[in-house]
Amino acid sequence: MQKVNLQEKLSLFQEQWRPKIVGELNGQHVKLAKLQGPFVWHHHEHEDELFLVIKGRLCMELQGQAPIWLEPGEFLVVPRGVEHRPVADEEVHLLLFEPAGTLNTGNVQGDRTVENLERI
Amino acid sequence: MQKVNLQEKLSLFQEQWRPKIVGELNGQHVKLAKLQGPFVWHHHEHEDELFLVIKGRLCMELQGQAPIWLEPGEFLVVPRGVEHRPVADEEVHLLLFEPAGTLNTGNVQGDRTVENLERI
Repeated sequence: MQKVNLQEKLSLFQEQWRPKIVGELNGQHVKLAKLQGPFVWHHHEHEDELFLVIKGRLCMELQGQAPIWLEPGEFLVVPRGVEHRPVADEEVHLLLFEPAGTLNTGNVQGDRTVENLERI
Repeated sequence: MQKVNLQEKLSLFQEQWRPKIVGELNGQHVKLAKLQGPFVWHHHEHEDELFLVIKGRLCMELQGQAPIWLEPGEFLVVPRGVEHRPVADEEVHLLLFEPAGTLNTGNVQGDRTVENLERI
């Protein structure tokens, strides 16, 4: 059993859009990610996703409703089935909480899909 | 769908040792809690628990191993079955992730047990 320091883990990688697993509990993963620019529109059939901003500002675009801007210390749960697209003008650092095995691009597999996430 | 600002939610309550539910996803709850002093030794039969420190310093005492001190921006997952006791010399603010229905005192029901957690 070891504690996890979020800043220390964030210092271990620079790649954007490749979440890293930093914790696991109850079949869920805690991940850290660095994002910049627009992602792809997608949804998750069976998984709700939590996005907690650690640094920067994230715009979560959502189908059928106004985008939601998240600042550090703010989180949003995007329920399963809801089309969404994270966008960040400048690099944003995020903590994600979602079921183990959740694909970053959900129903849209392509260039941006990352399988076999690294644990750091 | 609404974002949650952790500091705003923390400003809504003062009671210590009574976690509040601030989010729900995949059968898990996101909770906020304020703790000070020693809690009771306990474990959870079926639930792993994540403790993320937002403010202050938490000492997690663990049976059979050295205590683990957590500072802001650090988290610890206490696996199911592991006897533990959180202790805080000064008030600490925490974010908890754990399955919905997890009792704060685990296997030890008593004065410190809080049932029917409030949602804020």
